[in-house]
Amino acid sequence: MTVGTINFPHMHKVGGILLGTSFTGIKQKNRADIVVVQMPKDATCAGVFTQNLFSASPIQVAKEHIQQNPRWLLINSGNANAGNGKQGILDTLACCSALSLNLAEQNCNIKQILPFSTGVIGEPLPVKKITAALPLAVANLQEDNWSNAALAIMTTDIFAKGASCIINIDGHLVTLTGIAKGSGMIHPNMATLLGFIATDATIGQKLLQNCLSTAVEQSFNKITVDGDTSTNDACILMASGLSLAPEIKPKSAGFIAFSQALTHICKQLAELVIRDGEGASKLMRIRVEKAFNATEAIKVAKTIAHSPLVKTAFFASDPNWGRILAAVGRSGVNRLDLAKIEIYLDNICLVKNGGRAATYTEDQGKKVMHQDEIIIRVVLNCGNVTQEILSCDFSYDYVRINAEYRT
Amino acid sequence: MTVGTINFPHMHKVGGILLGTSFTGIKQKNRADIVVVQMPKDATCAGVFTQNLFSASPIQVAKEHIQQNPRWLLINSGNANAGNGKQGILDTLACCSALSLNLAEQNCNIKQILPFSTGVIGEPLPVKKITAALPLAVANLQEDNWSNAALAIMTTDIFAKGASCIINIDGHLVTLTGIAKGSGMIHPNMATLLGFIATDATIGQKLLQNCLSTAVEQSFNKITVDGDTSTNDACILMASGLSLAPEIKPKSAGFIAFSQALTHICKQLAELVIRDGEGASKLMRIRVEKAFNATEAIKVAKTIAHSPLVKTAFFASDPNWGRILAAVGRSGVNRLDLAKIEIYLDNICLVKNGGRAATYTEDQGKKVMHQDEIIIRVVLNCGNVTQEILSCDFSYDYVRINAEYRT
Repeated sequence: MTVGTINFPHMHKVGGILLGTSFTGIKQKNRADIVVVQMPKDATCAGVFTQNLFSASPIQVAKEHIQQNPRWLLINSGNANAGNGKQGILDTLACCSALSLNLAEQNCNIKQILPFSTGVIGEPLPVKKITAALPLAVANLQEDNWSNAALAIMTTDIFAKGASCIINIDGHLVTLTGIAKGSGMIHPNMATLLGFIATDATIGQKLLQNCLSTAVEQSFNKITVDGDTSTNDACILMASGLSLAPEIKPKSAGFIAFSQALTHICKQLAELVIRDGEGASKLMRIRVEKAFNATEAIKVAKTIAHSPLVKTAFFASDPNWGRILAAVGRSGVNRLDLAKIEIYLDNICLVKNGGRAATYTEDQGKKVMHQDEIIIRVVLNCGNVTQEILSCDFSYDYVRINAEYRT
Repeated sequence: MTVGTINFPHMHKVGGILLGTSFTGIKQKNRADIVVVQMPKDATCAGVFTQNLFSASPIQVAKEHIQQNPRWLLINSGNANAGNGKQGILDTLACCSALSLNLAEQNCNIKQILPFSTGVIGEPLPVKKITAALPLAVANLQEDNWSNAALAIMTTDIFAKGASCIINIDGHLVTLTGIAKGSGMIHPNMATLLGFIATDATIGQKLLQNCLSTAVEQSFNKITVDGDTSTNDACILMASGLSLAPEIKPKSAGFIAFSQALTHICKQLAELVIRDGEGASKLMRIRVEKAFNATEAIKVAKTIAHSPLVKTAFFASDPNWGRILAAVGRSGVNRLDLAKIEIYLDNICLVKNGGRAATYTEDQGKKVMHQDEIIIRVVLNCGNVTQEILSCDFSYDYVRINAEYRT
């Protein structure tokens, strides 16, 4: 299932960013599962990576290579190349090396290739199959290939995820276009699932990294499907510098417009991941208001977002606010006073003055719960900070998908 | 489902501890859901209570009354009387008051009554129905009523949970007998679900409290079904002092025997809760070995125990060790080195030297996974501390039970 009606948007091409796809047959015959992305020579590139201590081999390699002015991305889906020890690193490098040979005419250094993998953990990377698929991916490198790339990086995703916009900087058009994949093992921490975003803006590497880190913090780092932080999360932002707009500098008007657009793109992609959460039938916006600080607000929101009891109640459209209350109470934030807390589903007040709100009727709660998008507002009344986490419900399909994953 | 074959044990009577049951019809007609327990005049009583900040009304009252040499417990199932604000406290006190009137000939002070409730959160306590049921419970107070009491405190539990043993202290027999309930919202923190244990030992209140706290830390605090700490958890230990054994004093031989027996009873009850975990089909013993300290060992064990991806893989009998590895990596323990970690299912080594063990075959893993009790051993190799957490898998039935809970 997915939450809401998803229309894949028109993906604006990004000048200088070429994408090529191919298929290895790892997952299904004739289903694309390889993406190669090429940036122009003077492009800048920023990245954020999973905080899982046992990051996958490609992540370890990409973190090193991103220091070397990367020009290419090599992405495979169907195999995560995680938990494969030293062999995993060798296999990743072998694939980078094979790509560099296909690109030989361009004096490619394998250190300029960022590798990414997503799929099953602990299976050896099928290096030969990937290598064999590379010539086709390189042959069809083109600017107008974003939707094919979005399809090729999917694993348990039901739909492809893209977002694209054009902004105006000093009278010149600047494009931002991005894709993401992710449905399970989603609880990004300083990074996310896989997200690849490109722009034709001209912007230095350090500032690009700042923009990306800020945008990810407000988007991918605010979603959770199951609380499981993946070993393979990464989000990459490439800037080709081919738009005619002047270089983006800190504090310029262009900087603000660019940052806002980037955050917007990241939020759209992050929300699509939740709408495609494994087994999801409902989108839960968990908004903690009037908190003492952001840390406490997020702690409360995530405790609700991760509670299997809350998630199964939402699946059943049961306004079981006692479970929300119990989650807030066990969140570890000791400043809270039950007598002051208010809980709302959309605009229906369920809890006030330490218990069920006098005005609340079960029928009101049930009506909201039958929607496929619900805002859970928890007003702590001990400060003025608001934070929002996006999550989804827990269904039979979640169990089915994850019980059948490797069969 | 339940894990394993459960036989309700023979429950040894505890001299001086009388139990009576009755029914209110809150849950089902003619199904007992009220328990009254009476202790003799000079009994001592210890308790541990939930750390959920929003503890239920009966917990708040019980924590106060336990200071007043309690003589009676009043337990109802089917309604938790949590999240009911001030009215919840008044309703709890009204029930205590009604019980005291039924016991009037004994000069009962309502402060000597400890109330406990378990069931749905946020519904008003049906005081009249409980009050009407009390005379019958008082009329059938008797020593030989433990199994009826174990049945009466059940909510979503499939089977009644009891444990009982007799030990020898200085040539005299001392009995310990206890019951517990719990199946969902199980992640006790300093206390548990509901557990009621009695002994005829003679032991001062402070020492009794020490014994209980120590035993709970090693048993109920080491289990989790869903990571949700309840608002109503409590575990009570009553000592009637009617055995002929000498008073238990610190460091006496009797103290050690008593403490060990109590921990044994608590561990048996805690394990029964996991075997009856909502929807559980497998018992997972998550043993983290060679950790630097207990805090880190428990952190790793609980991250595995709470991972929906690990739990659904166990439900599917899928030896998906990548999910276990990913959980260890995101546990927040930064001392870990993947290259040193070993992961075993029972005695099958799955992970060694940073990846899949050379000797491992998928068939070996599948064979273990089809058992209904599995030991997951994670050897961290950075110290010498071992900790074990008990948990269970995540099944379709977990979703069904919690989606249908209030319907």
